[in-house]
Amino acid sequence: MALKEEALELHRTFQGKLSIDSKVSVQSARDLSLAYSPGVAEPCREIFKQRDLVYDYTIKGNLVAVVSDGTSVLGLGNIGPEAAMPVMEGKAVLFKRFAGVDAFPICLNTTDPEKLIETIKLLEPTFGGINLEDIAAPACFEIERRLKEEMNIPVFHDDQHGTAIVTAAGLINALKLAGKNLHEVKVVVNGGGAAGIAVVKLLHSMGLQQIIMCDTKGAIYEGREEGMNETKIEISEMTNKQKLKGQLKEVIVGADVFIGVSAAGILSKEMVLSMNPQPIIFAMANPDPEILPEDAIAAGARVIGTGRSDYPNQVNNVLAFPGIFRGALDVQASCINEEMKVAAVYAIANLVSEAELTEENVIPNSLDPRVAPNVALAVAKAALETGVARLQMNITDLAAKYKNLTVC
Amino acid sequence: MALKEEALELHRTFQGKLSIDSKVSVQSARDLSLAYSPGVAEPCREIFKQRDLVYDYTIKGNLVAVVSDGTSVLGLGNIGPEAAMPVMEGKAVLFKRFAGVDAFPICLNTTDPEKLIETIKLLEPTFGGINLEDIAAPACFEIERRLKEEMNIPVFHDDQHGTAIVTAAGLINALKLAGKNLHEVKVVVNGGGAAGIAVVKLLHSMGLQQIIMCDTKGAIYEGREEGMNETKIEISEMTNKQKLKGQLKEVIVGADVFIGVSAAGILSKEMVLSMNPQPIIFAMANPDPEILPEDAIAAGARVIGTGRSDYPNQVNNVLAFPGIFRGALDVQASCINEEMKVAAVYAIANLVSEAELTEENVIPNSLDPRVAPNVALAVAKAALETGVARLQMNITDLAAKYKNLTVC
Repeated sequence: MALKEEALELHRTFQGKLSIDSKVSVQSARDLSLAYSPGVAEPCREIFKQRDLVYDYTIKGNLVAVVSDGTSVLGLGNIGPEAAMPVMEGKAVLFKRFAGVDAFPICLNTTDPEKLIETIKLLEPTFGGINLEDIAAPACFEIERRLKEEMNIPVFHDDQHGTAIVTAAGLINALKLAGKNLHEVKVVVNGGGAAGIAVVKLLHSMGLQQIIMCDTKGAIYEGREEGMNETKIEISEMTNKQKLKGQLKEVIVGADVFIGVSAAGILSKEMVLSMNPQPIIFAMANPDPEILPEDAIAAGARVIGTGRSDYPNQVNNVLAFPGIFRGALDVQASCINEEMKVAAVYAIANLVSEAELTEENVIPNSLDPRVAPNVALAVAKAALETGVARLQMNITDLAAKYKNLTVC
Repeated sequence: MALKEEALELHRTFQGKLSIDSKVSVQSARDLSLAYSPGVAEPCREIFKQRDLVYDYTIKGNLVAVVSDGTSVLGLGNIGPEAAMPVMEGKAVLFKRFAGVDAFPICLNTTDPEKLIETIKLLEPTFGGINLEDIAAPACFEIERRLKEEMNIPVFHDDQHGTAIVTAAGLINALKLAGKNLHEVKVVVNGGGAAGIAVVKLLHSMGLQQIIMCDTKGAIYEGREEGMNETKIEISEMTNKQKLKGQLKEVIVGADVFIGVSAAGILSKEMVLSMNPQPIIFAMANPDPEILPEDAIAAGARVIGTGRSDYPNQVNNVLAFPGIFRGALDVQASCINEEMKVAAVYAIANLVSEAELTEENVIPNSLDPRVAPNVALAVAKAALETGVARLQMNITDLAAKYKNLTVC
């Protein structure tokens, strides 16, 4: 059966993909009085006395909300909160499958950033973390910024940071093959949406010196007047020190790396030919990339990665978010900071050993069971080291725990 | 081990009581592309084209939010949303256990009725129903009224209606023993909170003619000035036609039925002795009832029910809410109307056969597996008959489905 029909049938047969189950058995009157009234009053009393005990007696400590307003779902655009549900359920499935995190879809019936912010804040007593998903730029930036400031649990917009983290991991490994230094390469990021902005910011915090971002108006530079907003002004200050102007075809000349989070077919063979030797391409427009892998290779690309599972080097967020939240939840981190994201980048990159590293294998396979535990450990360690962990876990204990991380 | 310690240990060991699990297996790359990108785009597209398909392709149609602000939790009062979590999780456990309904706790960090209303409304794309829980009176009345008006899915405040439905079922059976007619008896309801108001309204809609409600100021009558609010004015218009005034001990004289949802020890033996012969008592204050069963019996009560599991005739909401939502969800009812509630009352009452009916058995056991399917069928039927069902299910098919309702 074709994928489309099979996907429809799967969703219809199971009436969605999630099930909410009880971890405790209720067979006898005694069971009933332990899980519910009157026994349940005891954990309530304890949490009332000391609010942090909510992490000990409830599901909060292992629970992430996957929140969307349905404004930017996959490549489908603004399809609304009901139509976004299958994606959020799918995300919750992957959270459980790869990292044992309980995740729950919350699709909200508003696109007003203020209402989204207020609503998500009110959900804080229930959840241990917030994974924002498929919220359109530029609203997503303000929503995430405000929630990070105003909530005491980790908030993470996966479309931004998940993509950025996996791309950066792939880039590290691709540069090893090309024998180039991460801090010295010239990188052009094409696409001014949520993912593009996050890629630029992450590469900047990893110490890359020569980054140029292009949007539909061409290169972004300090002082550009057309099509700017608060976020792009910030980008103009941290990138393009030479203030290069012009369209993609002009600024890509002499670049080492192209990262596309834009639209199908944007990158021509001629542009690849104009790059430095052994160019590295991440063409992540979905479902059709900025350049087809065969065309990029024909034009001399050393490595090409896409968002697709039918080509090598798939940049798949599932390599990042399950492990990141696993680590953040386990040390009760109050946020997911830059250090934790960079730790995730290197944990993913390092899973491809020198022996395994080839042009077609710069990113681990999406189903590789080693990924989530390794990312979790690195993220937890970074949280502990940067002082954002409320729980002072021992790293050796955590490592032992992750050895047994059940993958179901 | 004592109940209290065992309850704490249970909650700590499992770190809460719920687990969010996948109904679909993700082992292969193909599985991943069906449950998530790119296959997941298909149900998204279908729902975007026709929004009601969200019931076919997602968990919405079997999903209830158990929502609280933590202002009136069990007998513990206003303990806040974090401390309310164990109760809401417990409720979700029971929804699944008794009726196969997926239910999810949502504890909100506000007590402002307007914010609660707005937040719950924004959750509508995700959920098939809303079970309000442990929200204090009088805010709970306005919140429920507004949500019922402004949402297109069933909204049900269980503390009100669950208690009322089970009490009414017990009353019907108790009156059979006493040989009295439901429509002719004089009933005194003591306690002006959420449950008391709901008991009065339900009995009124069942056709009872002589109801008197007492609150801390005594009997409520039309024109009373002290301690009134919008809800109590409404009550004063539907009850106490003789405009009796005075405290409980005065108005209870000559009553056939006492229903207490108030406080420990309020009902004295003397008051019971002042009632009509074969008085029926439901003393549901928790954990200590308005009168102890042994004292009520000594004073001549024919039947006594309480909220406690260690005495006969436990009025336990678990007899009502799982089946009510099961039935409402299965026909995609837009609300839970009075007819559906009354149908639930008779379904519960009728489960105690003439042969089984005794003074100590006017209400089915909380663990009786016949209850939820029977309630569900009656509620679905009432929804279909009153035109609030969006799905025109065949009752015979539904009955067959409920025969196989898995109780786990």
